[in-house]
Amino acid sequence: MRGTFYQRLKASWQANNSLLCVGLDPDPGKLPSHIAAAEAPLFAFNRAIIDATKDIVCCYKPQIAYYSALSAEDQLEQTIAYIRTSAPKVPVILDAKRNDIGNTSRLYAREAFDRYNVDAVTVSPYMGGDTMTPFFEYRDRGVIILCRTSNPGAVDIQDLTGSDGRKVYQRVAELAVSKWNTNSNVLLVVGATYPAELAEVRAIVGDMPLLVPGIGAQGGDLEAAVKAGRTADGTGLVINVSRSVLYAGSGESFADAARAAADGLRDEINKYRD
Amino acid sequence: MRGTFYQRLKASWQANNSLLCVGLDPDPGKLPSHIAAAEAPLFAFNRAIIDATKDIVCCYKPQIAYYSALSAEDQLEQTIAYIRTSAPKVPVILDAKRNDIGNTSRLYAREAFDRYNVDAVTVSPYMGGDTMTPFFEYRDRGVIILCRTSNPGAVDIQDLTGSDGRKVYQRVAELAVSKWNTNSNVLLVVGATYPAELAEVRAIVGDMPLLVPGIGAQGGDLEAAVKAGRTADGTGLVINVSRSVLYAGSGESFADAARAAADGLRDEINKYRD
Repeated sequence: MRGTFYQRLKASWQANNSLLCVGLDPDPGKLPSHIAAAEAPLFAFNRAIIDATKDIVCCYKPQIAYYSALSAEDQLEQTIAYIRTSAPKVPVILDAKRNDIGNTSRLYAREAFDRYNVDAVTVSPYMGGDTMTPFFEYRDRGVIILCRTSNPGAVDIQDLTGSDGRKVYQRVAELAVSKWNTNSNVLLVVGATYPAELAEVRAIVGDMPLLVPGIGAQGGDLEAAVKAGRTADGTGLVINVSRSVLYAGSGESFADAARAAADGLRDEINKYRD
Repeated sequence: MRGTFYQRLKASWQANNSLLCVGLDPDPGKLPSHIAAAEAPLFAFNRAIIDATKDIVCCYKPQIAYYSALSAEDQLEQTIAYIRTSAPKVPVILDAKRNDIGNTSRLYAREAFDRYNVDAVTVSPYMGGDTMTPFFEYRDRGVIILCRTSNPGAVDIQDLTGSDGRKVYQRVAELAVSKWNTNSNVLLVVGATYPAELAEVRAIVGDMPLLVPGIGAQGGDLEAAVKAGRTADGTGLVINVSRSVLYAGSGESFADAARAAADGLRDEINKYRD
């Protein structure tokens, strides 16, 4: 791949004037009926969403379970191949939250970076830095580590406060900067539902890009999230939205409705960037 | 499936007088040449290992990345189907370390329990209890949560000490008992490489079964691990070994060598159970 993931992301932020990422999480129960009847419905749905949004997003993020649960890895492959040809400058993030010990982690890295050939993948830090090294070693790819997630149960582990007064997710952010980012290819996941935590992480990690889920169906406050997470130059964020774009409309015109929803979100995000 | 995972595991411990689990992690670079030349080499290798060990193991544990990295999900399915017919009383654990927010976690649970139809799956606790609920809801299946893993980097997150003096992995063990095990289908992963931590977790979780990796190639001390982790009745452990059984021999007689290695490990484990 050309350049680093940071470079490709920066170019994409600029080219489409957008920090918006669309999550390609096609739910068979929510597809328009003419799409549900197609031979490869997940891919047909994604293709229409990609055609409708490729000039207004900074990334696409397919979540792998939407495909693997249905034995539809082929449709994930088709989707990624379609982005490569129709929107070659839009990076693809595989949301997979992988992690294991070294031997096996190498295979997970191979799954993401060689089999699916994506620009970046999400990983879990629970097992520690050595388990993420096989991912870090793909120097031209991005490794997006869970830090503070957007769900209520995030408090169970991530908010535990250490004897030094720092919480687990703060420690993850510190390790990301001080130890794990030697190849300049690490990003963190911080949910939009917790803007105060987003601001704390931003203060720890400098300009490191953050993947921010939790807007839209999950109820995060977009203005608060952008203001808390943006860098000095008004970028630094990959703000993911899935359901509220994908299912903005139904029936024949679903892709137009998705574009309108994505366009509105992009504009709203841009209002708060400076 | 008949009964609960705890019941099936207990029956299997008894029937084969074994706490040994064999990890079905076929590495294409290490397969005997006559197997590597087969049409479905991963399955051919696994089938021979299963035939050679099915009366002396308590579980099989395929690690999914060994298949997904190679687009070989079909050979994982074949392997599981083969265990169901040739060793129907030996439970299958899918090692996948999955986790995500609720919506997506449901799909990961579906991948493991419906698509692959395994008895149990490993999951990561980093995102918190709510993200594991879709797994817990499969009441007849086991949910095996990472607690204290066997790799050196486990200290990065799992060993962080809270302001109450408890470490993250101890908190995971406590939550597993107090909050997450309402359906009596939770187990924990605790590495054999840290017998002291294994003893601590055992003290917290009572009779909850533990999946113990780290023996063999990873260098864990078998005697120390069994003594630290066993329950009062001399069970409670699923001790996984992969490489030192799978690659005990090479060439035509690899399966005989694997059986001999597995048999030796089973006997050694049994020495320390009482």
